[in-house]
Amino acid sequence: MTKHPKHAAADHDVMPLIRERWSPRAFDPNRDVSRDDLLRLLEAARWAPSSRNAQPWRFVVASRREAPVSFDALWRTLSGSNQSWAKAAPVLVLVAVDGGLSSPVAVYDVGGAMAYVTMQATSLDLSVRQMQGFDREQARAAVRAPANSDPIVIAAIGHPGDPATLDLDKHRAAETAPRERRPIAEFVYGGAWGEPY
Amino acid sequence: MTKHPKHAAADHDVMPLIRERWSPRAFDPNRDVSRDDLLRLLEAARWAPSSRNAQPWRFVVASRREAPVSFDALWRTLSGSNQSWAKAAPVLVLVAVDGGLSSPVAVYDVGGAMAYVTMQATSLDLSVRQMQGFDREQARAAVRAPANSDPIVIAAIGHPGDPATLDLDKHRAAETAPRERRPIAEFVYGGAWGEPY
Repeated sequence: MTKHPKHAAADHDVMPLIRERWSPRAFDPNRDVSRDDLLRLLEAARWAPSSRNAQPWRFVVASRREAPVSFDALWRTLSGSNQSWAKAAPVLVLVAVDGGLSSPVAVYDVGGAMAYVTMQATSLDLSVRQMQGFDREQARAAVRAPANSDPIVIAAIGHPGDPATLDLDKHRAAETAPRERRPIAEFVYGGAWGEPY
Repeated sequence: MTKHPKHAAADHDVMPLIRERWSPRAFDPNRDVSRDDLLRLLEAARWAPSSRNAQPWRFVVASRREAPVSFDALWRTLSGSNQSWAKAAPVLVLVAVDGGLSSPVAVYDVGGAMAYVTMQATSLDLSVRQMQGFDREQARAAVRAPANSDPIVIAAIGHPGDPATLDLDKHRAAETAPRERRPIAEFVYGGAWGEPY
């Protein structure tokens, strides 16, 4: 299990994988992710449920060491803030939705598949940070995604690194701040909207 | 861990929770899900990641025993095929997206949160089957969801039951058939679309 100070302060007992999963920005630039481990993450996605078993998830893997041109092309599509930390990640993965972003069912199922990737990663002491902050059309061009598949997320994958290596003050601060979530009562209702559970 | 014949035939080593998670249709009508366990499932969702930590997931819990009117109202919105098996589930949960189905970022994040629910459920020997087959506007009315939150899924939650209790031949057959997924090579690319990883 990953040892980091960002374990969730859960109000109800949840399994260690949930408590320990966390989306860091600081990655160790000197620790690669093996192909074996990446395949285990993708295999976890493979067994996710999907509506009518459509399996709408698509992944383009760009390892900084093995595919530096692809890595760089994906990295350039990121927002400036994301570029500043993601440069140290050993792997970027573009996640796309077969059926496109106009299909909520497909988008929902791809979100679930990537959640399984984050669980499997946590079990391997790997970390994943998913980014919505990137230029979708540039990313589509970078990986040559077809018209019927839309990029939804670029995920950085690697081993956690030292927060002190982050370029931006706000990122260093966020990296060590307590994790925060709404209380259950704000998003869980009993029987009908607004009724306490 | 759940003991059932539907463990994933994984090509790469993944954790038991991934292999053993499965979406049954047969639920045991005589085994309720405790409030404690439901809160643990919802707590797992709570700690999911979301873009800008927006936490767009909303849940309306309808237990057959504790909230029979709400359970029945949700059940009536299901497709006939889903009604036939879901009647035996002890709990239905309507899952909604704050921001609505026109926000792919929010829909994606809610899909991830529900995936954590399925992992936590598997760890507790509970099963979850998510349904897209329901009437969204009827479901909105049934739980009085506001205009800015759209129902995306109704999930059945409970303990697995006996496939022989299912009404429909096709459901009994599906319940014991091997699980199938595309091979990795069909949805994972290396560096650019269509390139082998």
